[in-house]
Amino acid sequence: MNKSPFDDDKLHEECGVFGVFGHDDASALVALGLHALQHRGQEASGIVSFDGEDFYAHRAQGLVGKGFSDPNVIARLKGYAAIGHNRYSTTGETLARNIQPLYADLSFGGFAVAHNGNLTNTHQLRQELVTQGAIFQSTTDTEVIIHLMALSKKTAIIDRLVDALHQIKGAYSLVACTGDRVIGVRDPYGIRPLVLGRLGDSHILASETCALDIIGATYVRDVEAGELIIIDKDGVHSKRPFGDKSSRFCIFEYIYFARPDSFMEGHSVYEVRKEIGAELAREAPCVDADLVVPVPDSGVPAAIGFAEAGKIPFELGIIRNHYVGRTFIEPTDQIRHLGVKMKHNANKAFIEGKKVVLVDDSIVRGTTSQKIVEMVRQAGAKEVHMRIASPPTAHSCFYGIDTPSTENLLAHRMSVDEIQDFIGVDSMAYVSIDGLYRAVGAAKRDNGAPQYCDACFTGEYPVELVDHTDKSARTKISSLNERRQKG
Amino acid sequence: MNKSPFDDDKLHEECGVFGVFGHDDASALVALGLHALQHRGQEASGIVSFDGEDFYAHRAQGLVGKGFSDPNVIARLKGYAAIGHNRYSTTGETLARNIQPLYADLSFGGFAVAHNGNLTNTHQLRQELVTQGAIFQSTTDTEVIIHLMALSKKTAIIDRLVDALHQIKGAYSLVACTGDRVIGVRDPYGIRPLVLGRLGDSHILASETCALDIIGATYVRDVEAGELIIIDKDGVHSKRPFGDKSSRFCIFEYIYFARPDSFMEGHSVYEVRKEIGAELAREAPCVDADLVVPVPDSGVPAAIGFAEAGKIPFELGIIRNHYVGRTFIEPTDQIRHLGVKMKHNANKAFIEGKKVVLVDDSIVRGTTSQKIVEMVRQAGAKEVHMRIASPPTAHSCFYGIDTPSTENLLAHRMSVDEIQDFIGVDSMAYVSIDGLYRAVGAAKRDNGAPQYCDACFTGEYPVELVDHTDKSARTKISSLNERRQKG
Amino acid sequence: MNKSPFDDDKLHEECGVFGVFGHDDASALVALGLHALQHRGQEASGIVSFDGEDFYAHRAQGLVGKGFSDPNVIARLKGYAAIGHNRYSTTGETLARNIQPLYADLSFGGFAVAHNGNLTNTHQLRQELVTQGAIFQSTTDTEVIIHLMALSKKTAIIDRLVDALHQIKGAYSLVACTGDRVIGVRDPYGIRPLVLGRLGDSHILASETCALDIIGATYVRDVEAGELIIIDKDGVHSKRPFGDKSSRFCIFEYIYFARPDSFMEGHSVYEVRKEIGAELAREAPCVDADLVVPVPDSGVPAAIGFAEAGKIPFELGIIRNHYVGRTFIEPTDQIRHLGVKMKHNANKAFIEGKKVVLVDDSIVRGTTSQKIVEMVRQAGAKEVHMRIASPPTAHSCFYGIDTPSTENLLAHRMSVDEIQDFIGVDSMAYVSIDGLYRAVGAAKRDNGAPQYCDACFTGEYPVELVDHTDKSARTKISSLNERRQKG
Amino acid sequence: MNKSPFDDDKLHEECGVFGVFGHDDASALVALGLHALQHRGQEASGIVSFDGEDFYAHRAQGLVGKGFSDPNVIARLKGYAAIGHNRYSTTGETLARNIQPLYADLSFGGFAVAHNGNLTNTHQLRQELVTQGAIFQSTTDTEVIIHLMALSKKTAIIDRLVDALHQIKGAYSLVACTGDRVIGVRDPYGIRPLVLGRLGDSHILASETCALDIIGATYVRDVEAGELIIIDKDGVHSKRPFGDKSSRFCIFEYIYFARPDSFMEGHSVYEVRKEIGAELAREAPCVDADLVVPVPDSGVPAAIGFAEAGKIPFELGIIRNHYVGRTFIEPTDQIRHLGVKMKHNANKAFIEGKKVVLVDDSIVRGTTSQKIVEMVRQAGAKEVHMRIASPPTAHSCFYGIDTPSTENLLAHRMSVDEIQDFIGVDSMAYVSIDGLYRAVGAAKRDNGAPQYCDACFTGEYPVELVDHTDKSARTKISSLNERRQKG
Repeated sequence: MNKSPFDDDKLHEECGVFGVFGHDDASALVALGLHALQHRGQEASGIVSFDGEDFYAHRAQGLVGKGFSDPNVIARLKGYAAIGHNRYSTTGETLARNIQPLYADLSFGGFAVAHNGNLTNTHQLRQELVTQGAIFQSTTDTEVIIHLMALSKKTAIIDRLVDALHQIKGAYSLVACTGDRVIGVRDPYGIRPLVLGRLGDSHILASETCALDIIGATYVRDVEAGELIIIDKDGVHSKRPFGDKSSRFCIFEYIYFARPDSFMEGHSVYEVRKEIGAELAREAPCVDADLVVPVPDSGVPAAIGFAEAGKIPFELGIIRNHYVGRTFIEPTDQIRHLGVKMKHNANKAFIEGKKVVLVDDSIVRGTTSQKIVEMVRQAGAKEVHMRIASPPTAHSCFYGIDTPSTENLLAHRMSVDEIQDFIGVDSMAYVSIDGLYRAVGAAKRDNGAPQYCDACFTGEYPVELVDHTDKSARTKISSLNERRQKG
Repeated sequence: MNKSPFDDDKLHEECGVFGVFGHDDASALVALGLHALQHRGQEASGIVSFDGEDFYAHRAQGLVGKGFSDPNVIARLKGYAAIGHNRYSTTGETLARNIQPLYADLSFGGFAVAHNGNLTNTHQLRQELVTQGAIFQSTTDTEVIIHLMALSKKTAIIDRLVDALHQIKGAYSLVACTGDRVIGVRDPYGIRPLVLGRLGDSHILASETCALDIIGATYVRDVEAGELIIIDKDGVHSKRPFGDKSSRFCIFEYIYFARPDSFMEGHSVYEVRKEIGAELAREAPCVDADLVVPVPDSGVPAAIGFAEAGKIPFELGIIRNHYVGRTFIEPTDQIRHLGVKMKHNANKAFIEGKKVVLVDDSIVRGTTSQKIVEMVRQAGAKEVHMRIASPPTAHSCFYGIDTPSTENLLAHRMSVDEIQDFIGVDSMAYVSIDGLYRAVGAAKRDNGAPQYCDACFTGEYPVELVDHTDKSARTKISSLNERRQKG
Repeated sequence: MNKSPFDDDKLHEECGVFGVFGHDDASALVALGLHALQHRGQEASGIVSFDGEDFYAHRAQGLVGKGFSDPNVIARLKGYAAIGHNRYSTTGETLARNIQPLYADLSFGGFAVAHNGNLTNTHQLRQELVTQGAIFQSTTDTEVIIHLMALSKKTAIIDRLVDALHQIKGAYSLVACTGDRVIGVRDPYGIRPLVLGRLGDSHILASETCALDIIGATYVRDVEAGELIIIDKDGVHSKRPFGDKSSRFCIFEYIYFARPDSFMEGHSVYEVRKEIGAELAREAPCVDADLVVPVPDSGVPAAIGFAEAGKIPFELGIIRNHYVGRTFIEPTDQIRHLGVKMKHNANKAFIEGKKVVLVDDSIVRGTTSQKIVEMVRQAGAKEVHMRIASPPTAHSCFYGIDTPSTENLLAHRMSVDEIQDFIGVDSMAYVSIDGLYRAVGAAKRDNGAPQYCDACFTGEYPVELVDHTDKSARTKISSLNERRQKG
Repeated sequence: MNKSPFDDDKLHEECGVFGVFGHDDASALVALGLHALQHRGQEASGIVSFDGEDFYAHRAQGLVGKGFSDPNVIARLKGYAAIGHNRYSTTGETLARNIQPLYADLSFGGFAVAHNGNLTNTHQLRQELVTQGAIFQSTTDTEVIIHLMALSKKTAIIDRLVDALHQIKGAYSLVACTGDRVIGVRDPYGIRPLVLGRLGDSHILASETCALDIIGATYVRDVEAGELIIIDKDGVHSKRPFGDKSSRFCIFEYIYFARPDSFMEGHSVYEVRKEIGAELAREAPCVDADLVVPVPDSGVPAAIGFAEAGKIPFELGIIRNHYVGRTFIEPTDQIRHLGVKMKHNANKAFIEGKKVVLVDDSIVRGTTSQKIVEMVRQAGAKEVHMRIASPPTAHSCFYGIDTPSTENLLAHRMSVDEIQDFIGVDSMAYVSIDGLYRAVGAAKRDNGAPQYCDACFTGEYPVELVDHTDKSARTKISSLNERRQKG
């Protein structure tokens, strides 16, 4: 039901964050929270804790359940406050020094920070900071925030942080730890998610509510767009350094990124997905189809919604092999010719001779869709119809999602009719943008003041793309080429 | 949809086998086939190939996709004939020398064999063989077969093999390789599965049809109970060394072990599971329930069948975290108290205030069921009803399935009413044994001559349990204690 | 003949450095040079190279021959300029980010630096730098130099470096790379060694001449105390930013640290060691001894010198097991009682019934000496006399040598007579400080202006110990506790 | 002083063995003993122990200090009796199943055996055994012994062993464990060494006395040629199953294989080596030479003996880098041209302008000798004279030593004069065969009944070379090609 760790024909969330203040097992809770947020990043994880005197850090390549499974690791991460981070692998290799949370000894003391999102003026700020004598240890844009704080003329830590926040642009949900407090921030548009929870007397910050559930914490509320939350021994304090701004939450979180059992901004992700499926069934019905088949695993809720609304039987007509995502056999020409099915297999008993509606959440490059349709046809389907539970993905994201460049997006290069031919289906439909908005409870998209960030569908970017626009800023971030030590 | 690699409250298949004769990429095909059969064994895999002159072997701990991912490994396994084996981990540790296929230089040449199943007179035979001077290199019962062949007085290889088969008792589906031929055997009752497939001019043997699908091979037929198949350059030859016997195929393969996209003895596994769910809905309806929720992932097909037959909405009310199966945090008392939900999370949006029917395929010890029910209740379910898509599992298996000893089986210790209380549900029902037989197409169980092996439900064991009955034979298999080298 | 990698009763050099400018295989030459300098640091090694456009880095735990043995590693380290560093293991564990050369993107471009030595005002400078907004990525004092350069008000790189050098105190031999040049610096007293070599048109910097020999380079001259060498495409340039100062080279390099086949400041290290032995034989003869036995391996040259001068036969009376340095068996009481001899064994054939002179280079804690004397006595020696080829080591080093704190030095706690009793020998003598100076070619120590740094013997420290003296500066360098990722 | 682990221009001992009976820490003592015998085999080690009920085994690739350093490993190897084995690496890779001691469950109980030496009729016996139905698990010739015992018609274990010994031919020093006893055997000619020691009430068997020294055990006596020693709770029992035969101990053990601190057959190995050097000085003096320089490390004792007898100063004119033996840099043409000196460096201070006598223990292929002479000449030597402390090595060994085939031995292809030219020296001499015999205390070689096995010099092989002579027996030992699992 959750996302595959290695599906390379999907957009990918780049990070998950989690923070705890006021619990004796703070680091263990963070490890569990990160495990629940593993779908938001599988490349590497890190935890920094504070025990009233010292900070403790552990960062490891790979899944949380591997990097933090040694009981000594958690035992060493002492303290009542801890923050953690999952990182998504874009390349399969990563520098150890890029694993978050980042930590720095600043003049006021230790400071650790973890970031979900992406800044759009990193290069510009980085050039200015290096000119002032700043030395960067990572290639993450998160480090820009730390240097802005280090060089801020303000005295108080929070003032320094606000000083830094006013200079950065982009999408960010941050959790930070200064020792005696844990801090959460959402960017002025609240593009990436962040929720506040409670476990007894402890306070929790998490990217999604599923990470509250795993430790039995209760959901309190979503951190608001542009809100800065400070948790210390006196409790939770809220600041609004940007004044009031209207939220533009990432609508794709509903479509694919978030776990189906999470609630976001008050909505059940699973219910929204089912509802998108129902909208699709109304907008683009397929009345005489024999069965609705989800593309596993992410298409399942929309397919159930489609099947219910369309009154067509729902069947698991495609079975997924959970054991591995990547092809591990170097294919000879002969083997390539066989069309090896590493990930999926058609459930022939149901497909043969049937009119099949395939439901998927989105299409990025379209290569996987093509293969799946071919497999379903080989299994004997009479007709194959494709329904996509999102509008066409035609624009890259610059706010923390790993997307191909715009020209590699299928919907950028082709019309829906062309896509129908390319994928090889008898009919093809995407949900409309208004249908999508209806599924999340709006009457329709307010084109003057859109309620969500939907830039990947509409190309309307709420936050200025400074580095992207200013070609001169797009120089190499470092002239050092270093590979991670194999571990 | 497939089995979790580490669900310790399930019965487990102990092995999968695969063989290819007559293909230039024989070993690559075996690796792919083993990958498709990964659910039948995750501990270790091995492949032995033959190139007309020499045999080549590679055996590795862990998943196929890991142990065989280096292209050099496959390149070294040269030849047109190859057999492979997946092994299930009962302990997490294993001796390298126990990884199959086993290989021996016999007087007639090299011989490799891989075995799915379990012999019931291993200890007895082993004692006799050691007395004759045989030296065992593994603790697998498969090696008994090789020694019986080595010491056979017959001349021809096939005669030696038949000689050995007449001495062993138990369940076995074997694939073997003598260089110039690949051999497949199913025990006289055909307890474990084995199918024959074809890929161009090549012939394939596999535990399940899903392993034919992955390489695009076509299904020819199931190897019959008691049949010995010999594949050589002249094609496929069949022998029946045991004469005609009626088949007693393992009915639990349908319930849980096999992949849902496989066909066994002509039946779609997925359809049988749906049909068991439908039988359950007829035998033990739950008319005023609000929704049917499968226990992921194995309960899904039966839940769909139950929902359709019972006309109750089907919902994914429990979400599974695919990233890890084992608890990786050493729980302090505080953490234990939280009831950490590592594997599953209730989808609260659907559960709250609802009458829920949970559908699972089977119950072994009941510990997982208890936790899931508790989780569903905490999520606000008004009523929780449990429906199990198999009869009560009350007897251990001695034919190749990893089961707890009989006294640890919940259904051995408790009546259905007691189980209802233990699990904490409002109502509880198992499908009847006849309902199960109906789902696989029989009118009912023929108690005089049962059509399947259902010993785990009925305690009627078709093959004599020699070692189990003869206490004197149950001595230690070796006085050597050796741990595997960490790799 | 060389130092044992793990002799924990010896002082230890903490680093070796090597640099190449103007060779197509610059990184391969650096790797070879570091291999020849392995005795100066076994914990970790790093190389940074520059190819005219980009910098390339590789750093690895363990020996050079392990961390740089993959041909791809060297192939990736492209360029005509490269510098490298060996680091000594004080604890067996180290942070990946502490492995040198350090690298930073400064406003003028990339800058890499490697350091042999130790600064004495690191804490003081670090506190000032953090207050100015500097963020440290390592706990090495080398990083102070980089931050001083980053924050310097000067424009030209060399001016910034000189600016930084004027602020640091202590012992340092640096090699640095700015891309278009490789730089070498020795501190004003020239405490640690650094030599200049030539290989065809390429120029080399190395800690010792043995690292020139391995690649067939010729020795040009020692870099002078306080000299800054700049190597670029126009050749070698020399600067003297500190004016003229008299050199105080570390005399212990002759006694133990350097490889015997190196030349330092014009002297053969091996010859100096033999000459110290000869001085010892004159100062503290042992006229009726039967044989001179070196404590292997470092005592051999002095023992040969002693034997020649004293006209006593030289014999390898103690055999060393080269295979491991550390005890690997957890001793039970029984085993402890056996007095297990992991490293050395007496050559009984020569020892029994003899009057033996043991010659060692130095004594730190005395524990190894005690055990060796006991072993020699058990082998049947009639008398055992100890001669040490250095004066008593009674003071800690703060200039880049790993020494126990002063109170743990045997010669700090005991007189020579007390040491004789403690070690258990019949007579005991150290070479005199003047004898030592004679062995390196001086008439005697010039007490008004000593020719060498001999602080470990005399307690006269040529460079101010700022951090050591100013207690307030001795705070923790970072409040972060992080362990290296196991690799 | 000891052998380099990786000198590929030397002959190599293939194994070391060690056994303990009657000590609570038997396995720890074996591990220590194997560590002291590490020079006899570096590829892999194994220990099998017995605690009165069960056997325990651990086998590991690499050095003892690595494979047995985990305290849990030793703790698991429980018991009062244990045997162990070091194996030499001929290829760098090895099958896990070839690591000794081998173990088998025989009809009389468990049996473990470790072997130093080489059988000369393995192939012949193996073919016969396979025909009888024996299945081999390894490619070691040691396993032949186990199968011969398993198939013996005798009843008592010792009788079965003697039965087996009468069928095997070749050189062997065995230690075995049957649980209640530890057994030691030397072949009828006593070609390989084996000594008996005592530690309190415990009895020890070891390849060399240096392995007694490490645990503080006392040397009792050498096991005699053809003697079978049985150690049980009643003490040490001796049998002579072959009657009396005259010993032909391997004379090369004195020259190179054994550790210099060991005693063999009553002689100090170090003293014998010095004495060979002295013989050389008398047979082939070099009167006007300036200094005697050993080729490190194995040439040192002979060089000391030569220097003393020849009254020429002894100097360490060649320094060895102990950190690695293999070239780790893939040489480009440029680098190859440099003549990189990975292992040795000339000590120029002593060499320049001098007439140098180089002393080495033996020459195999001559490649290393050539390089060393070239290096010494480059360092400025006026003359270079080579003296070899053994006769010319002109014949392969079939008794447990890793030798090149005869045609690759320099002394097989060239006369001494030709070798002098090939090596590039001004004069060249080997010790005479009679000189060698004198050094071990004989008047001369008794050509009618030689006192030692000197086949590598004389080509007179005391034990029949069955497999070598019978070409038909030299078939492949197995048709299986398997590589070890990387660990």
